Amino acid sequence: MDSDIGFKAAFAEAQRGSDEGGVPIGAALVSADGQVLGQGHNMRIQKSSATLHAEISALENAGRLPAHMYKGATMYTTLSPCDMCTGACIMYGVKRVVIGENKTFVGGEAYLKQRGIEVVVLQNDKCQELMKKFIKEKPGDW
Amino acid sequence: MDSDIGFKAAFAEAQRGSDEGGVPIGAALVSADGQVLGQGHNMRIQKSSATLHAEISALENAGRLPAHMYKGATMYTTLSPCDMCTGACIMYGVKRVVIGENKTFVGGEAYLKQRGIEVVVLQNDKCQELMKKFIKEKPGDW
Repeated sequence: MDSDIGFKAAFAEAQRGSDEGGVPIGAALVSADGQVLGQGHNMRIQKSSATLHAEISALENAGRLPAHMYKGATMYTTLSPCDMCTGACIMYGVKRVVIGENKTFVGGEAYLKQRGIEVVVLQNDKCQELMKKFIKEKPGDW
Repeated sequence: MDSDIGFKAAFAEAQRGSDEGGVPIGAALVSADGQVLGQGHNMRIQKSSATLHAEISALENAGRLPAHMYKGATMYTTLSPCDMCTGACIMYGVKRVVIGENKTFVGGEAYLKQRGIEVVVLQNDKCQELMKKFIKEKPGDW
């Protein structure tokens, strides 16, 4: 799973966020047939954005798609999704959410499952390290 | 309630969306002391946006605010919020969500209540009329 194209894209976005001095969370939306439909990272600091979390950025960057394209899709995200991003995955009816790590924060995983979405937690050390570094350097921004 | 500053702002945004040929849903975030912190409307058509629903636009337009400013706040929205916007209200911990109408669509109202947020439905005819007109004119965009 760690070598998955979606996880790689999501992690590359988290790394990009880190390089920009932002919250290092990345996400990628991957279609049922393995195509990256959109990817993005948290833009809270870079754009003073209240809503451009990684998953929202990935959905936004994917643009308006026909509803069926989300149906078998997987949302990859490097950190457990907050309530807003959980709701976004539910609204679009993705099939699965793959989470890099949930040691830093546990979001709406139980609710995703309750709403019929498969949840996979990779517990990837590299994702956690990016968050640890960020929280240590910018505690006020976390 | 109909004369409330928040509802007026949300309805004005829905009207603006309608005038632009967009999905006529508006929202406004109002602080505990009655100040409009941000307002916006659905930009799905105008910006080909997958995530700029009215409530997300309002939160985004409010910018990054200190967490305490959301605490006693009310989110006004002209239509019952979808799962994403429901989650956004939960994430920011608003106190109350005031909904223009829920005859066109019922979103995450039950979940909002379950998470401790007060929900008020105005069942306002003008909000419903904007949606009826839109759905009649652009059924493929609803």
